[in-house]
Amino acid sequence: MNKKLAIAHILQSCSKEPKHEIGTFFAPSNIALCKYWGKRDTELNLPNTASLSISLGDLGARTTLSLNSKPVDVVFVNGKEFDKNTAFVKNLLNFLDYFRSYPEMYFIVKTEVNIPIGAGLASSACGFAALVGALDALFGWDLSTSQLSLLARMGSGSASRSFWHGFVEWEMGIREDGMDSVGVPLNIRWPELRIGLLILNAQQKILSSREAMQRTVLTSPFYSVWPNTQDVHLLRLKNAIETRNFLELGETSEINALAMHALMLTACPPILYSNPATLEAMHKIWQCRQQGLSLFFTQDAGPNLKLLFLHPEQDAIVKFFPDLNIIAPFMSRG
Amino acid sequence: MNKKLAIAHILQSCSKEPKHEIGTFFAPSNIALCKYWGKRDTELNLPNTASLSISLGDLGARTTLSLNSKPVDVVFVNGKEFDKNTAFVKNLLNFLDYFRSYPEMYFIVKTEVNIPIGAGLASSACGFAALVGALDALFGWDLSTSQLSLLARMGSGSASRSFWHGFVEWEMGIREDGMDSVGVPLNIRWPELRIGLLILNAQQKILSSREAMQRTVLTSPFYSVWPNTQDVHLLRLKNAIETRNFLELGETSEINALAMHALMLTACPPILYSNPATLEAMHKIWQCRQQGLSLFFTQDAGPNLKLLFLHPEQDAIVKFFPDLNIIAPFMSRG
Repeated sequence: MNKKLAIAHILQSCSKEPKHEIGTFFAPSNIALCKYWGKRDTELNLPNTASLSISLGDLGARTTLSLNSKPVDVVFVNGKEFDKNTAFVKNLLNFLDYFRSYPEMYFIVKTEVNIPIGAGLASSACGFAALVGALDALFGWDLSTSQLSLLARMGSGSASRSFWHGFVEWEMGIREDGMDSVGVPLNIRWPELRIGLLILNAQQKILSSREAMQRTVLTSPFYSVWPNTQDVHLLRLKNAIETRNFLELGETSEINALAMHALMLTACPPILYSNPATLEAMHKIWQCRQQGLSLFFTQDAGPNLKLLFLHPEQDAIVKFFPDLNIIAPFMSRG
Repeated sequence: MNKKLAIAHILQSCSKEPKHEIGTFFAPSNIALCKYWGKRDTELNLPNTASLSISLGDLGARTTLSLNSKPVDVVFVNGKEFDKNTAFVKNLLNFLDYFRSYPEMYFIVKTEVNIPIGAGLASSACGFAALVGALDALFGWDLSTSQLSLLARMGSGSASRSFWHGFVEWEMGIREDGMDSVGVPLNIRWPELRIGLLILNAQQKILSSREAMQRTVLTSPFYSVWPNTQDVHLLRLKNAIETRNFLELGETSEINALAMHALMLTACPPILYSNPATLEAMHKIWQCRQQGLSLFFTQDAGPNLKLLFLHPEQDAIVKFFPDLNIIAPFMSRG
């Protein structure tokens, strides 16, 4: 099934005309603890494995959508009209094409994003989720959150996880049309959990995750082992969350991220998102652990690290990383 | 078969008393282009895969051996009596135990090493090879170079490759006693080939390759794919050497090294020999390639990189890496 048909299937009984003047939706960014790396269907963004994320609370994208009376799409990001040639806007507009009821339907998209864009902080995840949510609000579709998750997944895979706070599993699914490849929230709160964003370079990455993922799948000799590794890590993570075993959560998240970056290192040509500062931070984190702190990291398609720790150790950790941007995923609500 | 029996088997018709006052032997250090990472027999140092190296010409170890009339071993490294508690000396002395004809046989070992010790520059490879060669010279065994290679392998696996200049393959072998797991020189000269040592940290590594290797084999989920990857890389490298295809040689060496480090990254706990300077250098090398230079690297169990290039591009490369220690493996003779 292609993307157009899959989207039409979800929207089959939905209005083709906006019900409201504007539609607004907030979607939190999310950080995968068990990564999504590799697709079995590149058009529908169906993954080779399940993945598991934690949402970033108030950090994310708030998108307001309205029709434009002029025959052109306009995109504002953080108050400024955004260049349509940037990957971020281009991808959003390409995806919007699937939702125009007639070719002359044009949109004004206003997005407020409070994280750096394209720097491995899941800006496309929250961007696509917020866009789909805003479409639902504008047209008054009143879709379920699961249906929104399915739609957003077809824009950006990890967007399927950006509709809930807390832990979210993106189930792999087995259907060809992807209707079972959807985000599902884990109904578990862990108020002490903290995410520390360590921004080492807020610049856009040179290679998109989309391309990096595809190159890895096609060229890494280690990729064949990845799905199995994921199964093990996912099980371990879910168990750690259920039993509030932070050491297990941190360790598994870290080795899962390292495994993903190891895969990329063996792609051809190799992909290395880390920069010298990333490595310095990793070594520092391991030193902290040797000194008894329960501090772990995860890393996505960029040089920045996301630190994982519990609230009681926050003061000690901030001494080592004074510039940490700390998020309490179970405290704040966007 | 245990190590003692294997060594006795090789030395079965050899003299137990020194034939000369002293014995001297030089062994070049060697850098693996197709790495040795993982043993099927940890006592005999039998590898899970074959490997292929290039020797470093005049860089290596020259060892002079004599009996000590006093009941103690003495080890001089570069003219200074060396602390017997250092890993380098400890390992050498432990290995010497297998060669004492009677318990009261003590040695004076004088080794000149012109590379940093324990920094991933194969000091143990040339150290063990030179020791075995010096034993042969002292006792007048007159063993073949292949037999010396077998003996040295039982001290340090990669020492089996340190008995020749140029390219050397360490054949994996299939015998349980390891008598077919031996270095074999490739009879091919490539005078234009250059190795550039980029010493980023000459300090001893925290984790020995021996331990790192073992941890990788036991804990990395990707290790199961390694032997197959090695087969492919080795074939490609031998083909590149035969046809003097430098791009193929460089690219394959680089991805082989990256694959080994990717394996280590997925060990538990993870092993990361790179430091910030290593990463900076990698990114710089890739930038050089984008600018058209045929420059590749390999990396061993340490933060230092070994650059691979051809003589005609040396001047251009030195502009980017002014501190490079350049070796012409087919020009110099130790």
